[in-house]
Amino acid sequence: MTIVNRTQSLEKIHTSAPKLESAIDRSVPESGPAEVDEETNYFATNPEPPYLAEIQQQVNEFIAFHSGKRRIALVTSGGTTVPLENNTVRFIDNFSAGTRGATSTEYFIENGYAVIFLHRQFSLLPYSRHYSHNTNCFLDYLDENESGTVVISKEYQEEMKVVLNKYQKAKDDNLMLFVPFTTVNQYLFTLRLISLELKPVHSTCLFFLAAAVSDFFLPTSKVAEHKIQSQGGGGKLVVDLDPVPKFLKRLVEEWAPNAMIVSFKLETDEKLLLFKARQALTRYSHQLVIGNLLQTRKREVVFVTTDDAVDYTISEEEEARGVEIESVIIPKVIDAHSTWISQHKQ
Amino acid sequence: MTIVNRTQSLEKIHTSAPKLESAIDRSVPESGPAEVDEETNYFATNPEPPYLAEIQQQVNEFIAFHSGKRRIALVTSGGTTVPLENNTVRFIDNFSAGTRGATSTEYFIENGYAVIFLHRQFSLLPYSRHYSHNTNCFLDYLDENESGTVVISKEYQEEMKVVLNKYQKAKDDNLMLFVPFTTVNQYLFTLRLISLELKPVHSTCLFFLAAAVSDFFLPTSKVAEHKIQSQGGGGKLVVDLDPVPKFLKRLVEEWAPNAMIVSFKLETDEKLLLFKARQALTRYSHQLVIGNLLQTRKREVVFVTTDDAVDYTISEEEEARGVEIESVIIPKVIDAHSTWISQHKQ
Repeated sequence: MTIVNRTQSLEKIHTSAPKLESAIDRSVPESGPAEVDEETNYFATNPEPPYLAEIQQQVNEFIAFHSGKRRIALVTSGGTTVPLENNTVRFIDNFSAGTRGATSTEYFIENGYAVIFLHRQFSLLPYSRHYSHNTNCFLDYLDENESGTVVISKEYQEEMKVVLNKYQKAKDDNLMLFVPFTTVNQYLFTLRLISLELKPVHSTCLFFLAAAVSDFFLPTSKVAEHKIQSQGGGGKLVVDLDPVPKFLKRLVEEWAPNAMIVSFKLETDEKLLLFKARQALTRYSHQLVIGNLLQTRKREVVFVTTDDAVDYTISEEEEARGVEIESVIIPKVIDAHSTWISQHKQ
Repeated sequence: MTIVNRTQSLEKIHTSAPKLESAIDRSVPESGPAEVDEETNYFATNPEPPYLAEIQQQVNEFIAFHSGKRRIALVTSGGTTVPLENNTVRFIDNFSAGTRGATSTEYFIENGYAVIFLHRQFSLLPYSRHYSHNTNCFLDYLDENESGTVVISKEYQEEMKVVLNKYQKAKDDNLMLFVPFTTVNQYLFTLRLISLELKPVHSTCLFFLAAAVSDFFLPTSKVAEHKIQSQGGGGKLVVDLDPVPKFLKRLVEEWAPNAMIVSFKLETDEKLLLFKARQALTRYSHQLVIGNLLQTRKREVVFVTTDDAVDYTISEEEEARGVEIESVIIPKVIDAHSTWISQHKQ
């Protein structure tokens, strides 16, 4: 594991980056009424998922169960979709298998947290992730033994038992609440709901926003009712999307002002990563942005705070041995969370 | 199960449908040089997947193994993606879990076929489909028994044994070749390759094209190298896609002119379904279009041929009992395939 403090190199990028916003005085509200309206308008003009009341009840019970006993983390995971049609055949998706969120959840639980896992349906789940989305299918792990019982094959027994025991303990202790989403609209409504429900425990809870949320959406008013028909000939499809309002700002300022909030910035262009991470931090004034490149995200991340940029890496050799970078960074996030909690105690 | 002959109602729709093409005399080639160029141009200007030679070898071995012993079906399954960026973060996807293709494959194998399963990576697979993409995760099927062995829980033993036995027999007899794709570009290159490799057995092989293939794509020349940046503020994303050339025409006329070809038409608007299915049949002059509506696709399909439109349905009660509509329609497809083969014997 290597930790590199990049404050200096960040400063260099910081000053040379194009169109960088100047530091913002937090005592002065940044946004005028127009921006507030954008988010409010979103929730007023897009449909609320019909199952939201059911989730509200589950979340409430989960919070009540853990309140005062342990910290709660809301971990978001996987990509959101933007349906292009009401009876959805086509949609825009964000690449994300959900590895970061599912893996991090295991390490949060190992370190004493309870986790609300807000995830894209069918993306990777904590624990079972070890056995899905790979070239083996479920049935490749199975055999029939001599007495005709279907069992896990010998070669997978040992490892699977460890994972199964951890999974069952987490379930028995009620340490995970799985809340699914598919569309960016479902994600936004559910995120708002859970954030507000968490209010009683904000001072000790952590928002760990690893989901790949679309920057764009198609307003309900523009969504085609039926499958978009290709023009029989040379017809082109032009999809004209609106930007998703900046909900992270609302989260930081109104939904959960006392909670520690960690967001992610995924880029593919190394030259942009630090600049974009710093920009997010400046724009939303939350506590931590974890930056990563699509190409190296399993071995390298950078923690960007107001004052600092710290790299965490594992080597290729460590990765090959099964070391997960989340085993390095989640304890660091938890340290920062402890500091945050102690600084915000009344 | 209900079978309704809809020839009459189809005729009504046929004549009243907008812009319907008139019947085409197959003795006269329909397409001029411009259309030929479109497909040729596609393969010339878009990159060939680097792993294609490896697939070619696997396909060749599979065909050689089964040639003369049993019929081969090429089943395509799942949706294709259209990457909007080269280092893909965002992509357009077509809704499809791959249920139709995975389920049909099992019934083809049960009826003596060998199947090349050209499928979207991580979509449903034959046999394991019974235990994936549902609310249970893999680990929910497992228990540790008194002697510390990880086994399938008692409640799932009986059913799982049946599925596992079928799966292992299909594997042991080498009856399935899994070939994955993700993007529409990978799909098209691989489909062409497999179609041409199947040439020696065209007269007895079946193309069963259940994949949800994008009608649109983004030419390589237009794909952004890095993640598309949202404009800080009110920036919109406009995605301008080109229509995918009509490869089904090329498949029917050039790649596999002696094979029986079945395509699917998925719509959400009942009023359009028969018209669009008939239009596809007229346009590509293959043998069978299976039409289905997104909303009722698990209980109702319509077989559209040049002369006929026949509904196949199962009741909600049958569906609830676990009857699969593929158990009804695959034997019908196989009957049609037998007729096709006998009519095309020299």
